[in-house]
Amino acid sequence: MTALALNTDVGEGFGAWGPDDEGPLLDRVTAANVACGFHAGDPDILRRTCADAAARGVAIGAQVSYRDLAGFGRRFIEVPPATLVNELLYQMGALEVFARLAGSRISYVKAHGALYNAAARHAGHASAIVEAVTLYDRELPLLCQPRTEVWDRALIAGVRPLAEAFVDRGYTDEGLLVPRSQPGAVITDPAEAARRALRMAQTGTVLSVNGRAVPVAPDGGDIAALCVHSDTPGAVAIAAAVREALAAGGVTVGTPAELPGGAGASVEVTAEVTP
Amino acid sequence: MTALALNTDVGEGFGAWGPDDEGPLLDRVTAANVACGFHAGDPDILRRTCADAAARGVAIGAQVSYRDLAGFGRRFIEVPPATLVNELLYQMGALEVFARLAGSRISYVKAHGALYNAAARHAGHASAIVEAVTLYDRELPLLCQPRTEVWDRALIAGVRPLAEAFVDRGYTDEGLLVPRSQPGAVITDPAEAARRALRMAQTGTVLSVNGRAVPVAPDGGDIAALCVHSDTPGAVAIAAAVREALAAGGVTVGTPAELPGGAGASVEVTAEVTP
Amino acid sequence: MTALALNTDVGEGFGAWGPDDEGPLLDRVTAANVACGFHAGDPDILRRTCADAAARGVAIGAQVSYRDLAGFGRRFIEVPPATLVNELLYQMGALEVFARLAGSRISYVKAHGALYNAAARHAGHASAIVEAVTLYDRELPLLCQPRTEVWDRALIAGVRPLAEAFVDRGYTDEGLLVPRSQPGAVITDPAEAARRALRMAQTGTVLSVNGRAVPVAPDGGDIAALCVHSDTPGAVAIAAAVREALAAGGVTVGTPAELPGGAGASVEVTAEVTP
Amino acid sequence: MTALALNTDVGEGFGAWGPDDEGPLLDRVTAANVACGFHAGDPDILRRTCADAAARGVAIGAQVSYRDLAGFGRRFIEVPPATLVNELLYQMGALEVFARLAGSRISYVKAHGALYNAAARHAGHASAIVEAVTLYDRELPLLCQPRTEVWDRALIAGVRPLAEAFVDRGYTDEGLLVPRSQPGAVITDPAEAARRALRMAQTGTVLSVNGRAVPVAPDGGDIAALCVHSDTPGAVAIAAAVREALAAGGVTVGTPAELPGGAGASVEVTAEVTP
Repeated sequence: MTALALNTDVGEGFGAWGPDDEGPLLDRVTAANVACGFHAGDPDILRRTCADAAARGVAIGAQVSYRDLAGFGRRFIEVPPATLVNELLYQMGALEVFARLAGSRISYVKAHGALYNAAARHAGHASAIVEAVTLYDRELPLLCQPRTEVWDRALIAGVRPLAEAFVDRGYTDEGLLVPRSQPGAVITDPAEAARRALRMAQTGTVLSVNGRAVPVAPDGGDIAALCVHSDTPGAVAIAAAVREALAAGGVTVGTPAELPGGAGASVEVTAEVTP
Repeated sequence: MTALALNTDVGEGFGAWGPDDEGPLLDRVTAANVACGFHAGDPDILRRTCADAAARGVAIGAQVSYRDLAGFGRRFIEVPPATLVNELLYQMGALEVFARLAGSRISYVKAHGALYNAAARHAGHASAIVEAVTLYDRELPLLCQPRTEVWDRALIAGVRPLAEAFVDRGYTDEGLLVPRSQPGAVITDPAEAARRALRMAQTGTVLSVNGRAVPVAPDGGDIAALCVHSDTPGAVAIAAAVREALAAGGVTVGTPAELPGGAGASVEVTAEVTP
Repeated sequence: MTALALNTDVGEGFGAWGPDDEGPLLDRVTAANVACGFHAGDPDILRRTCADAAARGVAIGAQVSYRDLAGFGRRFIEVPPATLVNELLYQMGALEVFARLAGSRISYVKAHGALYNAAARHAGHASAIVEAVTLYDRELPLLCQPRTEVWDRALIAGVRPLAEAFVDRGYTDEGLLVPRSQPGAVITDPAEAARRALRMAQTGTVLSVNGRAVPVAPDGGDIAALCVHSDTPGAVAIAAAVREALAAGGVTVGTPAELPGGAGASVEVTAEVTP
Repeated sequence: MTALALNTDVGEGFGAWGPDDEGPLLDRVTAANVACGFHAGDPDILRRTCADAAARGVAIGAQVSYRDLAGFGRRFIEVPPATLVNELLYQMGALEVFARLAGSRISYVKAHGALYNAAARHAGHASAIVEAVTLYDRELPLLCQPRTEVWDRALIAGVRPLAEAFVDRGYTDEGLLVPRSQPGAVITDPAEAARRALRMAQTGTVLSVNGRAVPVAPDGGDIAALCVHSDTPGAVAIAAAVREALAAGGVTVGTPAELPGGAGASVEVTAEVTP
């Protein structure tokens, strides 16, 4: 493993509500998952957030969501897949304007909240995400978890999935995130998060809450992105510690497009798809 | 006058509500003002409407609006101009995706409802519309009425305004539309609408409710677009009669981009701006 | 069976979108399920609809829904039950104002769309509906289908469920509605709907698409309400035919409160609850 | 002057966004202006806020607004007055449920943001507020400023207006609030706010930014309410200092209903209406 992107969610306010100054966090990541207005984000926030990211050379990703301002995109909605495709396209198009105005562009896609979770197992919604990316720009990589519906469908469709892991979340023995209601769900100690990050980058595994090594990288591959949640207490300190640890460990951090086989690279998919 | 665009509002449904089949109307116009989701239109409707327009060679225009689904964009909202700029950009970007998917693109901009009316006299909102066009793509023409704030500001900013008149609406002696609450506000007789359309195209004037000839074209210029409201009873028959009358009168009908000095043409603005 | 309510959904517009004149339908039913603003309905529509219903002596029911204007309440949303309770209370309170202004009051509750369907099997959402009724006014009866989660939970909580059946929908052998995508899903022939209605009222059963008699009434009980969907083609004619057939068959039609054991009646629940 | 209410805005969050713990502020006021969902507030927040207020014996007021979540109700919207009436009724009905659940009730009404400002001069919207109160419960007092459209129309309609002044805002020589963009707009020093509050209560006047005494009470009357903005820095300390100063000055603080001539008192209007 030689390079990966460090990403975080930004622009998650609406109208009178936030977000706070995200500059310090943007100073420490390489990829900004920007809310597009369906779970958070209004046009003013989109513009300011894209400008803030672009000014720091941080890559802009479309963090697409169910249409659910009231629920912050955290509730599964049984929207017809064909409608979901169009809702995601709408969000990407809206965000693109502000990325362009800031002299940048959307360079990857990542689902938010309940859609991110649904994409792991819901065939219709996983396909919808992949179809939206395909229709919008099939060169855009898609941040997601390996061994999920959306990962497999991306590979089949020729969309490049980038495997991500979470430096501030505990994992079960099965490689799933520990639910937030349980102990060990959130890692708030920067040093601990940094150690986990380096391990993930170097070995593709994480120690579960039970101390078992479980894989976070795809079979036969490496992780491509590490995520720090912007709402984890001490997120800035965590991001700083993670970057320092990765640098000390010889792991390069860059934007998704700078990764080996980033945007524009051809995708060799056959071997990885489970039949 | 040798050519003008015939435009109408389409895609004005939301979720379970409409719109009805707009094919027959799209068959008769050259320019479709497509709702972008802020006063009407959802992603499914945007996609279908753009496909329906593009399949007929009808130009796609971004019909941008205040954020007001509950009021269908018909109420003035005192939104800060800087926010309005961003709201219009958001709408244009979202619509563009579906225009591109249909093999077309946004080729002009037109404000909807209360924003259209406000643009005639509200300096801040007129400027916001022009700034949004400038930031998005300054080559895009802007459908509006001459002798208005937005017209003058477009010229100053180097954005090309296209003068439009309404074939199905009565005019006052001052060249304003007769309010819908008053007699003579709406023309529903196709033959009458067609006569008015031809007169507008050939003379740049319309007969007011008092029988006075009042100008609808810009000073020293021609009208560039005629509008048929899609919700006027008999809109399809009106559009058909207008096209027939224009053809019989030797007036060419085309998309905004096909007009002399259409999208991409240089704009000579100095002489027309009122000092 | 001596009396039942004939109900229909009304007020299902929003802003510029409908509804059409519902007077003819309201003339023929005894209970109006009024949309409360979460899937359809805005304050103007709520006020007008309540006035239209009250003027005819038609009972006003709160047709509560998931918060989903874009999807017309037709998509399941995994909202936390505690939040759903509050969303339903909010809707009931808002509607009550307009019912009172019209000289009436909310006299029953019925879930809409996806929430109606979810209530049949989703324990959390079924409980949320019952809890909302209990907190609002435990005397209000709840229209729903027997042998469902929400039916059982209503009985346990001491809320009176009213069994309803659909005169314009086909049933499977299992007593479920034939999905709208399949043949036989919708009955549009008034005479056929009327025959089915009378059979439901007199025998508590319906003939399935395969000709099997399946129960629509609760075990050991009668149906209490028949529903005509307002968007079924010919709904007015269907409602008229149903009323005529019921009258000819000696079945009394009244508001939910006029039913034997209607609002205010004590509920004997023990025997009917499945252990 | 012997008694007045100390009020503040609460419940101004939405979904994932706030509000913060409002307990400390509620501990110091006597009247809570609760957002009803149109500019802020969702059903969960309404329920929690009403419970928090009622538990402290704090009166619950309906803080009604334009429908404008994106703008936090801070933008004027040219909504038809008849529609505005219904929108306000809808909000009051929704809030009432949660007030009742908490063992309390709506005991006064106050407009929010742009609607509060518009009510001072916009005849149609001032009338709409008064009509909504009249239709809902004409015994409810209406917090507003004297010598405004809404004040006069309340008196004419027999609705009791309660004169309020702002302890944390600067006033112009004309008795208007200094715009937030100008120096002296906001008072953040608790001692200064307390001095101003006592002066307002005892003399019905405030010192303007130019040191002139200007009236805040109605002609020939007293102020009935003092407002502390919950978003003024140090709002809790300001509210504490104000209460202490009022107590030291012999001014009783109570809920609006506890004021002389509070809810239920007959209103003698004739003498106070400017002809």
